[in-house]
Amino acid sequence: MRRAVDVPALVESARAGSPRAVARLISLVEDGHPALREVMAALAPHSGSAYVIGITGSPGVGKSTSTTALVGAFRERGLRVGVLAVDPSSPFSGGALLGDRVRMQDHALDPEVYIRSMASRGHLGGLSWTTPQAIRVLDAAGCDVVLVETVGVGQSEVEIAGLADTSIVLLAPGMGDGIQAAKAGILEIGDVFVVNKADRDGADATVRDLRHMISLGDRTEPGLWRPPVVKTVASQKLGLDEVMEALDKHRAFIEENGELVRRRERRAADEIESIALAAVRARFGHVAGHEGLGALARQVVAGEIDPYAAADRLVDRLEA
Amino acid sequence: MRRAVDVPALVESARAGSPRAVARLISLVEDGHPALREVMAALAPHSGSAYVIGITGSPGVGKSTSTTALVGAFRERGLRVGVLAVDPSSPFSGGALLGDRVRMQDHALDPEVYIRSMASRGHLGGLSWTTPQAIRVLDAAGCDVVLVETVGVGQSEVEIAGLADTSIVLLAPGMGDGIQAAKAGILEIGDVFVVNKADRDGADATVRDLRHMISLGDRTEPGLWRPPVVKTVASQKLGLDEVMEALDKHRAFIEENGELVRRRERRAADEIESIALAAVRARFGHVAGHEGLGALARQVVAGEIDPYAAADRLVDRLEA
Repeated sequence: MRRAVDVPALVESARAGSPRAVARLISLVEDGHPALREVMAALAPHSGSAYVIGITGSPGVGKSTSTTALVGAFRERGLRVGVLAVDPSSPFSGGALLGDRVRMQDHALDPEVYIRSMASRGHLGGLSWTTPQAIRVLDAAGCDVVLVETVGVGQSEVEIAGLADTSIVLLAPGMGDGIQAAKAGILEIGDVFVVNKADRDGADATVRDLRHMISLGDRTEPGLWRPPVVKTVASQKLGLDEVMEALDKHRAFIEENGELVRRRERRAADEIESIALAAVRARFGHVAGHEGLGALARQVVAGEIDPYAAADRLVDRLEA
Repeated sequence: MRRAVDVPALVESARAGSPRAVARLISLVEDGHPALREVMAALAPHSGSAYVIGITGSPGVGKSTSTTALVGAFRERGLRVGVLAVDPSSPFSGGALLGDRVRMQDHALDPEVYIRSMASRGHLGGLSWTTPQAIRVLDAAGCDVVLVETVGVGQSEVEIAGLADTSIVLLAPGMGDGIQAAKAGILEIGDVFVVNKADRDGADATVRDLRHMISLGDRTEPGLWRPPVVKTVASQKLGLDEVMEALDKHRAFIEENGELVRRRERRAADEIESIALAAVRARFGHVAGHEGLGALARQVVAGEIDPYAAADRLVDRLEA
């Protein structure tokens, strides 16, 4: 049996800065707990002030170290910081293999920093709406900045780009050459590119390569943001000022031209749509007993009807 | 303007074995052409006899070479073979970076072999229903076996497993150790594991490692299929007989216990559901002018309502 949840008390504690309350709310998100509707309704009036920064890149480029350095930089400005480290793990394993990691020890005792590892369960594939909901919790709990770090490559990066106000793409020399970046689709999503481990051989070549690839895209048109490429050695906090400057510039740019609002509306639209589609899907299952999805699938396998005709019947039943 | 399509003539030509007609039908699938409804309705009575085999694994394990070898083995049995090589490319690029590859030259002139590279466009992420529809075309065109090869790792493998009657997971020594396999979620999806490049160091260790990981799962229970692990050197066609034997055994096993029918029904259900959800989604967009998705997203960003309440309104409007 599930524990009853005192949502108003929990939300009040989280807003007062209790890490335990924040942790409990994010666990409710991860569990898809029935109380989530009430939680989200209670959080809605208090959200919208956090700035969301995505940090993404291939394994081994130094995401954790870079995130830790950025947390320090935002703390120096006196801001409250939330960190979500999202592991896009197997949909079969049902959880992050890495689990809650003991890391970012620099900030472990700072009450103004909240750090959380999350699995991305991936209903409908990918990050789904677990991450936006967790962002909403940190936002309502008073975080000024939420850093969303994704492990892995591919689809997850593309989805994180849809979540963030500003997306940082991290690369390392020799790992993220232009063609690789283009293949992974990351050229399109980065607002700020950071070549970390810049004390290694090939850093300048990687920067040149990236700048070249960016110049080939359509982002050089007037009025469009041209993503800067910054070199860092995150472990020594080298280049951090330049990254912060690039983040500030991008934020000012998208605040001024209205893109920030558009991104947030697109993010909200995606979230609403995901929830609505899940509701519709659940109903497809619900009508499955009688001329429902199972029966239709059998008819398709038997060649009696085609999948489009079957889909029409499913949608028709939904509306009946 | 789109060319008008004479669907009955095209389907008739494809069934008579015209590679051009098959190519045109798969292009219609890739383009999401409006004539697809008519195409799928015309194909439905003629589909259901192809056996679908998924071949998946990380880059560099020798998927193309292995697929080519398997095509040869099925041809020796006198079967007609279709091959779909799916590139899960960036959703932004809108197409496979590799394009239609000149490869599998062994079979380029064999009229009983149809080979096609496809991009996975990924509406709703991943392979979506482009691949099932292309399988349906090859099936109706008289292919006895359809091999679906996926490039890449992660989500796409998991989806291919949902498509195939039998899933082959390819590994190579030193690349696909147990933990890696578990992380990628491939232990759960493989019906037959093939350690290719078995003439390299570490092949036996990889086989042992895989067998150990498999033994830790729940697939050792009586009545469940225990996936065999086979060694091959695909470039020299070594181990091919063992792979074919494993495929035959798995097919017999799932035919006998009813799992084949269940897999096909699940596949059809996924396809129907995807098409139905896309139809629902299109309607979400359609109502977007007036209290639709865009307006709801603005209210969520402003903190006036929460995403669940917004989703409820969206679904309610759908039914109104």
